[in-house]
Amino acid sequence: MNTKQPAKSNKKNVLIIGAGGVAQVVAHKCAMHNDVLGEIHIASRTKDKCDAIAQSVKEKDSFKQAAVLHTHQVDAMDSQALVQLIQDTKIQILINVGSAFINMTVLEACIETGTAYIDTAIHEDPRKICETPPWYNNYEWQRKQRCADNNVTAILGAGFDPGVVNAYARLGYDMMDAGSVTDIDIIDINAGSHGKYFATNFDPEINFREFTGTVYSWQDSKWQSNKMFEVKRTDDLPVVGVQNSYLSGHDEVHSLSANLDVPNIRFWMGFGEHYINVFTVLQSLGLLSEQPVMTAEGQEVVPLKVVKAVLPDPSSLAPEYTGKTCIGDKVKGKINSVETEVFIYNVSDHKDAYNEVGSQGISYTAGVPPVAAAMLVATGEWDTGKMVNVEELDAKPFINLLNKIGLPTRIKDSEGDRALEFDI
Amino acid sequence: MNTKQPAKSNKKNVLIIGAGGVAQVVAHKCAMHNDVLGEIHIASRTKDKCDAIAQSVKEKDSFKQAAVLHTHQVDAMDSQALVQLIQDTKIQILINVGSAFINMTVLEACIETGTAYIDTAIHEDPRKICETPPWYNNYEWQRKQRCADNNVTAILGAGFDPGVVNAYARLGYDMMDAGSVTDIDIIDINAGSHGKYFATNFDPEINFREFTGTVYSWQDSKWQSNKMFEVKRTDDLPVVGVQNSYLSGHDEVHSLSANLDVPNIRFWMGFGEHYINVFTVLQSLGLLSEQPVMTAEGQEVVPLKVVKAVLPDPSSLAPEYTGKTCIGDKVKGKINSVETEVFIYNVSDHKDAYNEVGSQGISYTAGVPPVAAAMLVATGEWDTGKMVNVEELDAKPFINLLNKIGLPTRIKDSEGDRALEFDI
Repeated sequence: MNTKQPAKSNKKNVLIIGAGGVAQVVAHKCAMHNDVLGEIHIASRTKDKCDAIAQSVKEKDSFKQAAVLHTHQVDAMDSQALVQLIQDTKIQILINVGSAFINMTVLEACIETGTAYIDTAIHEDPRKICETPPWYNNYEWQRKQRCADNNVTAILGAGFDPGVVNAYARLGYDMMDAGSVTDIDIIDINAGSHGKYFATNFDPEINFREFTGTVYSWQDSKWQSNKMFEVKRTDDLPVVGVQNSYLSGHDEVHSLSANLDVPNIRFWMGFGEHYINVFTVLQSLGLLSEQPVMTAEGQEVVPLKVVKAVLPDPSSLAPEYTGKTCIGDKVKGKINSVETEVFIYNVSDHKDAYNEVGSQGISYTAGVPPVAAAMLVATGEWDTGKMVNVEELDAKPFINLLNKIGLPTRIKDSEGDRALEFDI
Repeated sequence: MNTKQPAKSNKKNVLIIGAGGVAQVVAHKCAMHNDVLGEIHIASRTKDKCDAIAQSVKEKDSFKQAAVLHTHQVDAMDSQALVQLIQDTKIQILINVGSAFINMTVLEACIETGTAYIDTAIHEDPRKICETPPWYNNYEWQRKQRCADNNVTAILGAGFDPGVVNAYARLGYDMMDAGSVTDIDIIDINAGSHGKYFATNFDPEINFREFTGTVYSWQDSKWQSNKMFEVKRTDDLPVVGVQNSYLSGHDEVHSLSANLDVPNIRFWMGFGEHYINVFTVLQSLGLLSEQPVMTAEGQEVVPLKVVKAVLPDPSSLAPEYTGKTCIGDKVKGKINSVETEVFIYNVSDHKDAYNEVGSQGISYTAGVPPVAAAMLVATGEWDTGKMVNVEELDAKPFINLLNKIGLPTRIKDSEGDRALEFDI
């Protein structure tokens, strides 16, 4: 040990990439915990949006220790511009909550500068819809070796789903007898109401991509294909009650199937009949297509971009959003050789989220977890020096931290329904 | 009488304006009756479309007497270009089955050149949707005096509806005791199937305009406003059986209310649940708006034009169209002081229409009547020398002629269901 080196400070500066509803949550939460994190920066293509978030953080007086949110303009598709920004701002952790199209250029900048990287969704090529699994192999995991070689911490999919649900899967898996887990069913229910005829909770271009193609699930230890809205389940869930959900493709099904020895891993997204009807009409007419069409007047137009233009801006929904979300994992296996099922979950309230950080509950559940991940990187507990998905990490400090900073976890099993907290 | 003048020939040359599905029917039917009509010309903005119709007329060998369909390019929004074309082609009758936006420029050219004018739908301003009644007052009837002053025959709304249904209304009205008619309900049912997920039978831009705004009907001798799909009726109709239809606004409700002394005149359009659902979704989202929106990329787009671009071209539906249409008038009043109701109607078959003229039944029912009108102008029976709506004319020769050329009329009342034919 070289005692002449200064004591290592845990405080690390953070750069948030993106300025949408989730970024707003991330900014507020980073500010609220800047005793653990250091200087907080935010950058996006449109600096005005960053400034609006900075204004919101200032108005709500979110910084725990006196500070300001530094705002920047950057084209996140330009790795070298990002490298320059990382060097200029002297940040050690980057939280990427921008468009899913920018993941690889941002990750490259982190690898080049030795910056810890955290994101919340899988990389997507804007020219493709619903690529076939194994998805992480297409882009992210091809950089595993380079992250390890450069001692770069990269935590993939650290939102709620993927993210917290991966930690729930890990916890459920570890509670059961080794090799006994048969099923992990991730259920995502938004029982909230935005009061509009129809709206998407995220950018419609991304939102609709989740279910315009084939639905892939992991069943009998292999990939199975279905159509969207083909397979339905109904659950009586805590707080939100009886809810329908539909087998959907989702990032975490791939990483969980690769990292845990479980034959059936499925993701279920809740949809109301009205949502399905509107989606089906738009989809059937070809209005969700990202391929341009030609109008009678000779104008080339991408139908999906027009649908996006007529739908409410997702960020505009927050003030009127009421009701709750319930997202969790049903894990089936054996404990002491007895068949059992546990449901590990979180319930969040749209109005509470808006009051706290000015965003609706869907953005809130997605934005709080990467801040928790950043705090665990700052404290060293998750500073892995390699690329990992959340289920590869110790879930306990993550769950305990989320309990404290706004996303409490509960567990429901044969012994009842109770808060989940760990003694570490 | 100056006996030195040549005997007046009844044969009159015809110019068809437009090259859509209805124009195709008009061209075939004019050709089939060119012993009564003379040279047949067709013109539209896109000459290729006219040439395709000429090719179809040639392939089906439709001309009764050896002739060719002459094709021309013209911008029908340019009255002077039309005047030039009318003079060049030496036509005496113009059948306007182009877009509803061109009626006034075409009518002006007819007034200037002394040409008989026939159309099938009311004039519309492309910048407005669903103007308030009395509709014909907005544009057409403002030219009544000039038509009379110039001895110009102008027959407005001479398609099926408006058109044949106006003649049906007149016939029913005349069958009843004077002043006894209480109700004329025009019912338009398309019980056919095009086999697509969704399509409109005419240009979507025109089709959706019929029911995106307020529905106006004539009830208790005054205008009443409703919303589309607010008022429904169910009828058990000849051939097509039990059908739902909805109170809709339509051109002929205005002219009939002005020309006949009847307190209740309503138009009912048949729609299936699926059609209503798709329409409601598109309408509610703002995708049927003719007002431009701005995409995130800064492109200005009219949503309705994009919907039109993704929908099937109405002319492409004909080959696979099956089933029948039933359109008619229920007229309630007294005959010899006894309360009675008659239903005067036509049933047409989509497949028969396609086999005869290469168009589906909706285009067929709209395209045959203006040709009958043109023939009656050529024979002098309808050569009024002024502007009229169909109910102002003698309906009997029109009905008799339609019986012969493809649209037989039937009547159903307490005495049964039988063909309607007049001894003149």
